[in-house]
Amino acid sequence: MKTDRIECVLGVDLGGTKIALAAVEKNGKIHLRKESPSPAEDGEMMIQLLLDLIGSSLKACDKKGIDVKAVGIGAAGYILYEKGLLVESPNIAWSMVPLVSIVSENTGLSTFLDNDANAAACGEHYAGIARGVDDFVFLTLGTGIGGGVFIDGNIYHGHRGMAAEIGHMVVDPEGPECGCNRHGCLETLASGTALEREAARLLADNTGSVLFEMYSRDPEGVNGQVVARAAESGDVVAQRAFATVAYYLGLGIVNLINLFDPELVVLGGGVSHSGHLLLDEVREVVAGCGIPVLIEGAQIVLSTLGSDAGLIGAAALGWEGIGKPLKN
Amino acid sequence: MKTDRIECVLGVDLGGTKIALAAVEKNGKIHLRKESPSPAEDGEMMIQLLLDLIGSSLKACDKKGIDVKAVGIGAAGYILYEKGLLVESPNIAWSMVPLVSIVSENTGLSTFLDNDANAAACGEHYAGIARGVDDFVFLTLGTGIGGGVFIDGNIYHGHRGMAAEIGHMVVDPEGPECGCNRHGCLETLASGTALEREAARLLADNTGSVLFEMYSRDPEGVNGQVVARAAESGDVVAQRAFATVAYYLGLGIVNLINLFDPELVVLGGGVSHSGHLLLDEVREVVAGCGIPVLIEGAQIVLSTLGSDAGLIGAAALGWEGIGKPLKN
Repeated sequence: MKTDRIECVLGVDLGGTKIALAAVEKNGKIHLRKESPSPAEDGEMMIQLLLDLIGSSLKACDKKGIDVKAVGIGAAGYILYEKGLLVESPNIAWSMVPLVSIVSENTGLSTFLDNDANAAACGEHYAGIARGVDDFVFLTLGTGIGGGVFIDGNIYHGHRGMAAEIGHMVVDPEGPECGCNRHGCLETLASGTALEREAARLLADNTGSVLFEMYSRDPEGVNGQVVARAAESGDVVAQRAFATVAYYLGLGIVNLINLFDPELVVLGGGVSHSGHLLLDEVREVVAGCGIPVLIEGAQIVLSTLGSDAGLIGAAALGWEGIGKPLKN
Repeated sequence: MKTDRIECVLGVDLGGTKIALAAVEKNGKIHLRKESPSPAEDGEMMIQLLLDLIGSSLKACDKKGIDVKAVGIGAAGYILYEKGLLVESPNIAWSMVPLVSIVSENTGLSTFLDNDANAAACGEHYAGIARGVDDFVFLTLGTGIGGGVFIDGNIYHGHRGMAAEIGHMVVDPEGPECGCNRHGCLETLASGTALEREAARLLADNTGSVLFEMYSRDPEGVNGQVVARAAESGDVVAQRAFATVAYYLGLGIVNLINLFDPELVVLGGGVSHSGHLLLDEVREVVAGCGIPVLIEGAQIVLSTLGSDAGLIGAAALGWEGIGKPLKN
């Protein structure tokens, strides 16, 4: 007898600002969402809230005729993958949290944990632009830069689970100081934050631009995405800021192509949602300075998952993980 | 009936300066060597000489009671690994050479081709310091910098076979121009050539040093290894040049640890043979600027294979390749 119930994985996007959950079908369709601000200053409370949200989501799923097959968690922070252990997260007051065993024991469900950028990469492989592509590099461009690398169809974790910290590749030791203590990490030069800083710097000498007016009215509201939109609408200052960021991003991408020889480089995250300006600029930089025999093998593309990338990625961890042996 | 014959792989180290060959036992023992200068200006002649050297080596092996099971070739240049195709080599007048089929058809032996740095990495895995280590990054520090990455016990080739071009990771866009057209690639800042250039620069203002005397007597004879030895014997100028190179090498190694999360980082090649000074300096740089949770997982060590690394590596390609399906 056929059942009408729907199979889903519960995807959890776990960050310092909010916890978001969704039941996601194998085809990427989202059925149920929950969201709550993170009590990031209290690690115990984070865990309790997480378990509560998962518990209430599971009940809601059951009522709606959704069978949850597994839980997938994409979390900000460093993770010992094979141990299912969250070592530490930026801006969350916890450390050494055995998140996989906590959630799986509480729910009785197979639980898969990875960092948020790896999860987003997994989402691209599962339901996004990297479907069917086994070797690709994914960058998420937001406040910082996160990364995920797929090798032979699997997320590459390295020896302990912390590989692909792409944002912390130094590309200019004279660059701005990074939270990791080095100078000129890619994320200090090519993130949304870098775009905003560069625009603000240029504005000091360019008070006539559209962007300057936006800054004057609402400096807090001008983030990387706003600068990107201003650039697209023709603002010259924003375009110059954009070109600087695209230069460093292109430099970093050539490094990644030289190291990983990927089939695809996927750009995701807030800044990448703002359109093709970034892509065009970055492609030009890469074409101008890459090693021809290497760059000719790699396409650079934008993520197609939009703002649900985090949730779909977290769920994809579960969908890709079910029935597979743990693979480093 | 037992045979007294010895089983070997014929390792071929194929470069722009010379072609070296050796029959290498499974335990790394070398039985027979041949070497010839490369007629690098004539690609056809290179191929013919290579086949002649392999042919005469096979005959000599047979006479000596050595059964050659396979040929392993480590070649300078870009290689499409799965196609067994040598795309191009620096300083050798050939391109798109289907080297695997040429050699295997000529000899009737299984033939394995990889770039020289990947081969050297394979040698470390097979008979060197990385024996039993499945996830490591290998750097060969000579005139330039080559690289090889092992993942899950296999050389990582990337999508087409060109991964791990570690020497062409830009770490300072204001750095010296590289042969690849970018500026500040790791090999322009942390190779033997960089060490020599830095020492020469410092000597302009330090005419009293031991190194200066060596330069005065024989400028051509002062290479990276000589500078390294002068540094070890206490020459202050050489030590300062060494510290600059170690700084950039450390910077690059932190990038690699952040990207690959390896168990081991192995330093090989000419400069690394000069002792522990480099290692100590580099370890200090990495400890000073790496992300603690990442660098604590990776040990930095020197190659133990010495000047036979190229030959042992080439043979290791064969020993590791025999009976294994081609793996990307």
